[in-house]
Amino acid sequence: MDRTMHLGMILLGAGSHVAGWRMPDAQFGSQNLPLLQRVVQKAEAGKLDFVFFADAVNTGLDAHPGMMLRFEPLTLLAALAMSTSRIGLVATVSTTYSEPYNIARAFASIDHLSQGRAGWNVVTGSSPDAAANFSRDKHPPHEERYAIAEEYVAIAKGLWDSWQEGALVGDKEKGVFVDPAKMHVLDHVGPHFSVKGPLNITRPPQGYPVIFQAGASDRGLDFAGATAEVVFAAQQIQEEALAFANKLRDKAEAAGRARDAVKVVCGVSPVIGRTEEEAKEIVAELASMMDTQAAMRVLSDRLGHDMNAFPLDEPVPDLPPSGMMQGHAIQLTSIARRKKMTLRQLRDYAAVSSGHRLLVGTAEQVADDLEDWFRSGAADGFAIMSTHLPGPAERFVDEVVPRLVERGLFRSDYTGSTLREHLGLPRPAHPAAATGRTMHISG
Amino acid sequence: MDRTMHLGMILLGAGSHVAGWRMPDAQFGSQNLPLLQRVVQKAEAGKLDFVFFADAVNTGLDAHPGMMLRFEPLTLLAALAMSTSRIGLVATVSTTYSEPYNIARAFASIDHLSQGRAGWNVVTGSSPDAAANFSRDKHPPHEERYAIAEEYVAIAKGLWDSWQEGALVGDKEKGVFVDPAKMHVLDHVGPHFSVKGPLNITRPPQGYPVIFQAGASDRGLDFAGATAEVVFAAQQIQEEALAFANKLRDKAEAAGRARDAVKVVCGVSPVIGRTEEEAKEIVAELASMMDTQAAMRVLSDRLGHDMNAFPLDEPVPDLPPSGMMQGHAIQLTSIARRKKMTLRQLRDYAAVSSGHRLLVGTAEQVADDLEDWFRSGAADGFAIMSTHLPGPAERFVDEVVPRLVERGLFRSDYTGSTLREHLGLPRPAHPAAATGRTMHISG
Repeated sequence: MDRTMHLGMILLGAGSHVAGWRMPDAQFGSQNLPLLQRVVQKAEAGKLDFVFFADAVNTGLDAHPGMMLRFEPLTLLAALAMSTSRIGLVATVSTTYSEPYNIARAFASIDHLSQGRAGWNVVTGSSPDAAANFSRDKHPPHEERYAIAEEYVAIAKGLWDSWQEGALVGDKEKGVFVDPAKMHVLDHVGPHFSVKGPLNITRPPQGYPVIFQAGASDRGLDFAGATAEVVFAAQQIQEEALAFANKLRDKAEAAGRARDAVKVVCGVSPVIGRTEEEAKEIVAELASMMDTQAAMRVLSDRLGHDMNAFPLDEPVPDLPPSGMMQGHAIQLTSIARRKKMTLRQLRDYAAVSSGHRLLVGTAEQVADDLEDWFRSGAADGFAIMSTHLPGPAERFVDEVVPRLVERGLFRSDYTGSTLREHLGLPRPAHPAAATGRTMHISG
Repeated sequence: MDRTMHLGMILLGAGSHVAGWRMPDAQFGSQNLPLLQRVVQKAEAGKLDFVFFADAVNTGLDAHPGMMLRFEPLTLLAALAMSTSRIGLVATVSTTYSEPYNIARAFASIDHLSQGRAGWNVVTGSSPDAAANFSRDKHPPHEERYAIAEEYVAIAKGLWDSWQEGALVGDKEKGVFVDPAKMHVLDHVGPHFSVKGPLNITRPPQGYPVIFQAGASDRGLDFAGATAEVVFAAQQIQEEALAFANKLRDKAEAAGRARDAVKVVCGVSPVIGRTEEEAKEIVAELASMMDTQAAMRVLSDRLGHDMNAFPLDEPVPDLPPSGMMQGHAIQLTSIARRKKMTLRQLRDYAAVSSGHRLLVGTAEQVADDLEDWFRSGAADGFAIMSTHLPGPAERFVDEVVPRLVERGLFRSDYTGSTLREHLGLPRPAHPAAATGRTMHISG
């Protein structure tokens, strides 16, 4: 087939399962560089498109262990760029609690250090607790956060265009260091930011680092349709996933982009056994070690409501959407309704996969499922979350990836060298080069 | 002798000389990772204490080529941590245009990634042009910038103390992930920042990354005396350097610290030849390629006044101090007065060394000078700036360092593994461990 599946690995240091860190073979990886290097190199050996680091700018005490502590993602990406040569490196940075100049600069730097392998997962901040770490009275409301994010990403792109290709001349003989005609001042003045530029680093090898996004609210979808190049979906049900993907493709088209300019990557947590029974036993083992309070906190975070207020053994209540993580809330509520889950069942389900789709079975069954979703158009690819590290992540690469390659669904080797090339995304031309317009330095 | 000299290398990608990049053997290094790796590994082979990256959050157009573009320093440090194993890695980050939570976190991350080799050069922002990149009407005045910096560094230290040693338990059997009694919430509320904490990364291996500072104004000296562990001095005259160092030691003592708790490191730009004549010829060669407008812009930046307004061939005028770079301004004005320089002469002098002390001669003469300054107490060590890269930096390591080792002034091998150990600085104990007081999480 002419589409190629895209595969990434989401690395939560403690594993995606709330009790993953307690497994006998688990290593705790949030601040464990050798472990992360090992897993990322394994993912690269499997020719995966990217590894991905979630983030938060607060410590979720008493919640998921993987959300309590971790390396700062931009410095981690730079370090991992030195330990790898082909795989894409994606970090999450919130547009709510940082400055566009600093973040545009850091991503440009990582794209240079990695020779074109950086991706930026743009989030608007998933926890209202973060505000207290940034001298703010409150987390901005949903609508405002997205308005900020849109302006912020536009500024970042403008800054990445500061140095048009060829701006850095470096002619020793003539003493010409730069060509001012190819340097551009942004002079952005908007509702949330004023950023003059130019940026003090040349244009990233990829033009722009690849923009990832995960918002699934209507507002988030508008943003993703206009801006995102990879969208993470927490879809649980195949036909809903297909509808979601098509809605996103429509939005991209409406924004003047190609339908395949946005790759929809569904989060999946595979639990693989030699038999389906064995896989189920692993899930049961994980469940037996689960801290139920922590699990309920994870679910509460995902739904945006304190779920301790509701009876455990009754159906999951209908709740109004909160301003937080609407995508996860919609998906979890939907699967609870479909499968007529009690709150206890939904709690345990979310504990395993941090709100993503759980896939329990043999490597063959997992490959079948991924193939089915991919062929149906419900997903352009998958972001693999492991219940713990490194075993399950390595098992996915060793046992599932070769099956996908055999079936002609996934590459047997890299054909490009940048993350954009892995994803089949075009390198954005510099706007001045594209239009012929000049936007010189003012000085 | 019982004092050991400290040596670091300041890496300005285009070289410290405004025309350094034009030398036949110069490689342009601001965004040249292989070149930086090569020079840093050479510095490590010479057992230097640290390499150091200056920074600015704006592009100084038409000024020093080395100030126009470069890697973002935190991501660069993380990358270099992977290419080295012993040498300290110091980056400059302004407290004026960033959030303490983000920066404390990034430095903690680098300290973990490098296993205790991170240093933070705290600056308050050297160019007023930066304000326009950060949605600000103007660069805050000198006094306010330092008040912000003091509060900012105190917050960073508080955040680094979030996870007391032993807070991360990870007992799989008992299911105990953290010991809440060893986790600490900062709850900082101050005039410029409110930061709750805790930080989402454990205490850095060094306790706190080493704090560098370069301010030389009275306000800057107070801050350095109370807080800095290494102070860069741009001193040009030995007796003034000694007075400066003693003043700083007095301030440290007044702040309740040991006199040697602050290491004074003087910036030096050595130009080494096989003979003194050859060294002078190199300086002349550099001068012949100099862009005089760029050189005047460098001097104007250093003095905080547009020097184009004054006649070139008359004595350097007396100027009131500006709010910018007071240390450099004082030093350059002082040497101009002493040596009765014209503005043209001062321009050319500052062009060579970016305002630091220029040392022209044989390796033996350079070693003599460094020994003299060190033995007199005028300096605890030196930060070496190279006119261009990589030749002069490598020559310093190959020819001057062995002479300092022979004379018993400098180490022949590392005796410690962290930057603190190289510098002979104690690892700060956690305040709760030190005092027995508890400052538990509130939740």
